[in-house]
Amino acid sequence: MSRISYLSELLSSVFVRQEQQSRVEGRGSFSELCDALLSQSGEMSGNQLALGLLNRFAIATDNEKLEFFQLLATRFDINAEHAVRAAQHYAENKSAANLSILMDSVEPRRQELFRRLNRVPGATNELVLMRACLLKMCRQYPELGCIDVDFQHLFRSWFNQGFLVLREIDWHSPANILEKIIAYEAVHAISNWSALRSRLEPDDRRCFAFFHPAMLDEPLIFVEVALAQKSPDSIGEVLEPDRKIIKEQEATMAVFYSISNCQQGLAGVSFGNFLIKQVAKELSRQLPQLDTFRTLSPVPGFMRWVNKTLQPVEQTQTLDTDHAHLHAGLRIAQRLAQTDAVDMDEQAAEQLQAVVAHYLVNEKRSDHLPLDAVARFHLGNGASLDKVLPGADVSAKGLQQSASAMVSYLYDLDKVEDNHEAYANDQIVKTSIDVSALLTRLRKRRARAS
Amino acid sequence: MSRISYLSELLSSVFVRQEQQSRVEGRGSFSELCDALLSQSGEMSGNQLALGLLNRFAIATDNEKLEFFQLLATRFDINAEHAVRAAQHYAENKSAANLSILMDSVEPRRQELFRRLNRVPGATNELVLMRACLLKMCRQYPELGCIDVDFQHLFRSWFNQGFLVLREIDWHSPANILEKIIAYEAVHAISNWSALRSRLEPDDRRCFAFFHPAMLDEPLIFVEVALAQKSPDSIGEVLEPDRKIIKEQEATMAVFYSISNCQQGLAGVSFGNFLIKQVAKELSRQLPQLDTFRTLSPVPGFMRWVNKTLQPVEQTQTLDTDHAHLHAGLRIAQRLAQTDAVDMDEQAAEQLQAVVAHYLVNEKRSDHLPLDAVARFHLGNGASLDKVLPGADVSAKGLQQSASAMVSYLYDLDKVEDNHEAYANDQIVKTSIDVSALLTRLRKRRARAS
Amino acid sequence: MSRISYLSELLSSVFVRQEQQSRVEGRGSFSELCDALLSQSGEMSGNQLALGLLNRFAIATDNEKLEFFQLLATRFDINAEHAVRAAQHYAENKSAANLSILMDSVEPRRQELFRRLNRVPGATNELVLMRACLLKMCRQYPELGCIDVDFQHLFRSWFNQGFLVLREIDWHSPANILEKIIAYEAVHAISNWSALRSRLEPDDRRCFAFFHPAMLDEPLIFVEVALAQKSPDSIGEVLEPDRKIIKEQEATMAVFYSISNCQQGLAGVSFGNFLIKQVAKELSRQLPQLDTFRTLSPVPGFMRWVNKTLQPVEQTQTLDTDHAHLHAGLRIAQRLAQTDAVDMDEQAAEQLQAVVAHYLVNEKRSDHLPLDAVARFHLGNGASLDKVLPGADVSAKGLQQSASAMVSYLYDLDKVEDNHEAYANDQIVKTSIDVSALLTRLRKRRARAS
Amino acid sequence: MSRISYLSELLSSVFVRQEQQSRVEGRGSFSELCDALLSQSGEMSGNQLALGLLNRFAIATDNEKLEFFQLLATRFDINAEHAVRAAQHYAENKSAANLSILMDSVEPRRQELFRRLNRVPGATNELVLMRACLLKMCRQYPELGCIDVDFQHLFRSWFNQGFLVLREIDWHSPANILEKIIAYEAVHAISNWSALRSRLEPDDRRCFAFFHPAMLDEPLIFVEVALAQKSPDSIGEVLEPDRKIIKEQEATMAVFYSISNCQQGLAGVSFGNFLIKQVAKELSRQLPQLDTFRTLSPVPGFMRWVNKTLQPVEQTQTLDTDHAHLHAGLRIAQRLAQTDAVDMDEQAAEQLQAVVAHYLVNEKRSDHLPLDAVARFHLGNGASLDKVLPGADVSAKGLQQSASAMVSYLYDLDKVEDNHEAYANDQIVKTSIDVSALLTRLRKRRARAS
Repeated sequence: MSRISYLSELLSSVFVRQEQQSRVEGRGSFSELCDALLSQSGEMSGNQLALGLLNRFAIATDNEKLEFFQLLATRFDINAEHAVRAAQHYAENKSAANLSILMDSVEPRRQELFRRLNRVPGATNELVLMRACLLKMCRQYPELGCIDVDFQHLFRSWFNQGFLVLREIDWHSPANILEKIIAYEAVHAISNWSALRSRLEPDDRRCFAFFHPAMLDEPLIFVEVALAQKSPDSIGEVLEPDRKIIKEQEATMAVFYSISNCQQGLAGVSFGNFLIKQVAKELSRQLPQLDTFRTLSPVPGFMRWVNKTLQPVEQTQTLDTDHAHLHAGLRIAQRLAQTDAVDMDEQAAEQLQAVVAHYLVNEKRSDHLPLDAVARFHLGNGASLDKVLPGADVSAKGLQQSASAMVSYLYDLDKVEDNHEAYANDQIVKTSIDVSALLTRLRKRRARAS
Repeated sequence: MSRISYLSELLSSVFVRQEQQSRVEGRGSFSELCDALLSQSGEMSGNQLALGLLNRFAIATDNEKLEFFQLLATRFDINAEHAVRAAQHYAENKSAANLSILMDSVEPRRQELFRRLNRVPGATNELVLMRACLLKMCRQYPELGCIDVDFQHLFRSWFNQGFLVLREIDWHSPANILEKIIAYEAVHAISNWSALRSRLEPDDRRCFAFFHPAMLDEPLIFVEVALAQKSPDSIGEVLEPDRKIIKEQEATMAVFYSISNCQQGLAGVSFGNFLIKQVAKELSRQLPQLDTFRTLSPVPGFMRWVNKTLQPVEQTQTLDTDHAHLHAGLRIAQRLAQTDAVDMDEQAAEQLQAVVAHYLVNEKRSDHLPLDAVARFHLGNGASLDKVLPGADVSAKGLQQSASAMVSYLYDLDKVEDNHEAYANDQIVKTSIDVSALLTRLRKRRARAS
Repeated sequence: MSRISYLSELLSSVFVRQEQQSRVEGRGSFSELCDALLSQSGEMSGNQLALGLLNRFAIATDNEKLEFFQLLATRFDINAEHAVRAAQHYAENKSAANLSILMDSVEPRRQELFRRLNRVPGATNELVLMRACLLKMCRQYPELGCIDVDFQHLFRSWFNQGFLVLREIDWHSPANILEKIIAYEAVHAISNWSALRSRLEPDDRRCFAFFHPAMLDEPLIFVEVALAQKSPDSIGEVLEPDRKIIKEQEATMAVFYSISNCQQGLAGVSFGNFLIKQVAKELSRQLPQLDTFRTLSPVPGFMRWVNKTLQPVEQTQTLDTDHAHLHAGLRIAQRLAQTDAVDMDEQAAEQLQAVVAHYLVNEKRSDHLPLDAVARFHLGNGASLDKVLPGADVSAKGLQQSASAMVSYLYDLDKVEDNHEAYANDQIVKTSIDVSALLTRLRKRRARAS
Repeated sequence: MSRISYLSELLSSVFVRQEQQSRVEGRGSFSELCDALLSQSGEMSGNQLALGLLNRFAIATDNEKLEFFQLLATRFDINAEHAVRAAQHYAENKSAANLSILMDSVEPRRQELFRRLNRVPGATNELVLMRACLLKMCRQYPELGCIDVDFQHLFRSWFNQGFLVLREIDWHSPANILEKIIAYEAVHAISNWSALRSRLEPDDRRCFAFFHPAMLDEPLIFVEVALAQKSPDSIGEVLEPDRKIIKEQEATMAVFYSISNCQQGLAGVSFGNFLIKQVAKELSRQLPQLDTFRTLSPVPGFMRWVNKTLQPVEQTQTLDTDHAHLHAGLRIAQRLAQTDAVDMDEQAAEQLQAVVAHYLVNEKRSDHLPLDAVARFHLGNGASLDKVLPGADVSAKGLQQSASAMVSYLYDLDKVEDNHEAYANDQIVKTSIDVSALLTRLRKRRARAS
């Protein structure tokens, strides 16, 4: 047990160093600063330079940032001729020395620049912000994309799962972390501190986040969990302020009802799947009686697909044969998405259910993976599509995005491995008996129709 | 202040995860395990595989390890032809996509293997040990050197200075860390717990170490410091059990008397210069009255050089003209190194002093840097050669290595930057007036002689 | 440094134990529970009993609580005859044994009951709440006062200053502590989390609290501090949301602008004076350049005194000779206290200033100490009355309480000792030259008038 | 979980304050220092005085200490006449005010002196040492016993179980704590750090200690535990360096094999019974599969009783009728206690067993409790006498103290409560079937003999 406390101290020095830094802007042009930092044979004045450059960037105008990135993209790029020659040399003589030269020749100098910048306490976060800025600019200036190749290479090393730290967030957590939870919640907005408290303090609520040891004030991703005795039918049931709070010992099920990535600068460096599995493990440790782990998830791409599918109909009055049997469900979805209150009879609900199931299971991208991003995430983790819940999110956003439908993915820890393999290798989407039944009925209707 | 404690918790989860791991050896051949780990599209069973592979390696025989490394060196190497083609493509069209393909083409698949291994808690340490093993085998099997190119590339990212944590080691530190200080002390051996205590507990003693957040039980490098009022003339004075202990407030000087690298697997990934500067900063913060930072350092290469220089003399009876004026000093050194007790009159001491100064300042490698490794380290950090101390280490090791001489390098924080630049750019070795005078006298003698 | 972390663990077990407790209500009457708890020769089932009794009390109705206290006041009181006899025996033979018997004879059994209740984790806080409840009931049932004699005796031991822990509160502090700061702020209310943040996060703001190791979720008392370059003229200047924030290094002065006791159940067990001095010491350590420590304090009793003094005038049209020369100032105060906006010319301000100074310095209780409670607190600590600030608090509360006036007490750490002695022994109130001048002018006016 | 870390910080301030103290000896006589400290109406200079007095005491000679205690015993005693009068007043009018006066009148002023001394950081430990010194002097100067009445009164409040902290001690614990475990081990001496390590580091070893938050460097009491699969027959089996270490998950039994009180100055303020029960609870939490908690305990008073019992025989040649049937066993014990190696056939072993069982169960003090101190401790906790183990401790101490016999007390958590009640109320010693059988056979032999 004493090891825990030892760690705290180890990290405390990080803290001390961080505090002592202040915003001293580097003098000279970006170009001079970069040259100076890279020419440092030792690191004597390196940290001063690095700090100066980071601070300069932090307060730069958009134009100055663009200029800086253009510099990185050109002056600190690799020399293609050198690379060709080094590759040829290596092909002729596969020595370690030649490999080393080859690898060096294809490593842009900006990569070493980023490593040297990262020596300064607090720099990791600044570099994550720098990439967020770069990604935005890349849309307009795709020639900057080469810089991101280096960011991705570095961040995949730096944010290796082995370095991440899972941490429980609760009402005893520091306020500066909690305010970031409020800010970063991307699925079901948290309106204020009292709403936050109602998601953290009750006995049947949990929240976990991943942190990196060099960015301890910044969660990377977090998940909110409701402990329950039965599977919730709607997000309202979960967030209802006056709901009955159960004791943690009474819970048999953990419902992951919100997962938010926090750092735009870490796009593509994914940790979500690690998070869910570690949280499930940790919850099992805390509460061994839990026997079910499931999500209550949005279907973010549903209405986009509905509208696109129905669009030709507006013009031609008929759906293609693939979708004709879905027509009623699609119409219901379209109507719901335009209302601001849900009014749906049982039959309509079932039709919506079926069309959502169809969307998630059958509609694929060109790579044969599901159209829906959230579905790809959970199915890729080895979850199965367990329930489709019409009317589960009647907020404006819920109606607009998915005609009020939500779904529940099931994490059956015994099957998650096999599911994952089936999905990864053969794009098979596992579904519950109920969902399968829905789809079978649809198929029959289609067969009948054709 | 509360940030400190928050960090502690963050890391505590690392701990918990570490504890839960146990040595489950992976089934299948190394080759199968590697393939399986790399083919994992997700990371579902990845961590189990990684753990299995690490444990397999940990208990493998030397032959099995060799086989594993040979596998890495061949099957998981890059495809040279691909690399040539990718480089040519890039040279033709410098798009980000082509850069990315080029960089991927020169990254051996074993690098990704190491990254995946590293996801397992505790893996970083295992990989450091794996490299230590590799380095040993490379002597006999240089073809394995290509693997080390990847280790170096990864470790330079992972052990980036920005991720390291400086930590004070004292008598309140955990016993499991302290026993490693005893084990890793490489300069002046610590014979037992009571000797350790006398280096940590007195008010005028300090010890600092660097740690990595993913290897919290393993110091990477540490330095031992004596606080003093005057510069010590010998290591005996510093380590003397019955010496007078002064209060920390009375000290005006910090003497770095021992620096030890702990991890053979991190050879070439240097943090020593960061360490000394951070420790000097931290000591200044604790004790603002400190005005001098110096070392008491061995001269590990001195007798090797003396013997080599005198060797021709044994045969030819005369020294070359470059060294003729040093003859007396060299002989004294040779005699001392063979005794087991120091018996040196004042004149002899001065002659030894002069020849040590000459060795450190004038004797260079082919790259124009000093022959002596410890000199290269401190001069490279921007220290100056301040004192040569004959008779300062009369232990068997001290006599044998440097004929009892030690030296003191001075870290003048105001000049360290300039010294470093002069040394790095022009190989200039800064010396104190006293040492300069010694060398001037030698030069005059030489002029006279010639 | 490692000692710090060790402590953390030590206390972590407290935590663990606290969490494991739940509200199991004890069975049986209060009387039976008390008897059972006191009759326990060991402590085998004692903790269960104690927990049961505490939980029973926590959910009891007011009538049941009264009944419980009456039981304590009667059944668990001392036996007066025994006490007389024991005192006589001791007077005859002053042996340790007789002393022990005497001391036991005057210790009511409820004191041991409280000690046994306190063995349960979390009990200390419950007992503090119990006393808060008792104090309220004592107003109506003074016969319960005897119980408070025991509470005071125990709490003075348990909350001995040596056991208290000073802790800085900032924006990194746990939310559950911060919400208590909002709740307990008694001087200048904190309206919400964002107002709290503006008192904690800026570089020129500090907050410190005392805690007891057995009540770590409950601050006992806290003080809010503004770092400044000049003495503020009003509380508005301190709390102004858009004020200019200065860097901590630029501050030369610490202004204690709010001190709040948190626990009604600790009334009379004072730690305020320790707090201010420890905070001043801690701030000096953090920021050695600070040269002034002062307060910005309310004058809570001023208008009460003004109204009482003016009351006879309402009837008789004249003030007594002692107060006649204050007439103008008193009238101004009275007028201001009834407005809701301050409109005061320079002369009025000066007259208000003078009458406040008079009130604080000259108006005394029967024990010769100042009428004003806040004045007694700071003067008793060795502070001097440095400034009277008319118009410094124009909130409704400020106008009503003190006609907008606030004062600044100065903690001159070199004089605080002497000031304290002069005040404690001779009831001398030290004042600044300015305040003295104000009072001299008043005296002259009075002399002239008479 | 975050609460844990918060505590760490809370206590960290204690640490900081402790460090800043140094040994400033108070000027003036003890008498003057005491007067000054008690006359302090505030606490302005109080802490300086307290520190001075504590430091003066720490370096005082024995004569000076005696003088100090005599001062406390006389000048700072109560006024017996006042006490009589206050008791009479109270008997006449049982008001809270009169109770308060009465209680004050019997509280010696030295008690307030101790409370004021305790305000200084680190003072609690100094006061514990002061009492240790007092207890020693009381043997020669019983008139000082009255001071101990106050120490006991205060310490019982200060060291209330609710304030104590249970902490696991392991190989990650700070070295300064570990060296105290070596020093304080009172049952089976720990010869050096490597012996310590073998009691802390293996998977099947545990150690727990109680601490007080104001004395965090000083364990109060600790217990060493061996996890096992079967009950050990001897202490050698437990401490054997080359024994087979089992995994913690394989253990079914926890054997408490050493319990040591650390502070002589806390004699009579017992926490041992709390410790064992809390440790049993904590172990059950860590390792739910544990089903047996037992001790391996010495029988410290056995040979003293044997020798006393046999003494008359030396003179008269016959034992009294009560002990005649024990004669063989007593003789065996006497012989063993004088050898330095155990040589005992089965019959001898059984006779020793029987006489040890008789000693523990039937031989009582005047208060009807067992003669043996360790037996009183465990039986008083509700344990039962489960096994008598002849030949279990063949060290010199073991032979001399108990003729090599040890015993195992069983803590059956379900029966501990009832056992305790039976023992506390009716002095019934619960025994296992085996032990009962031994005693039955003895009784029969006695019946036959008579």
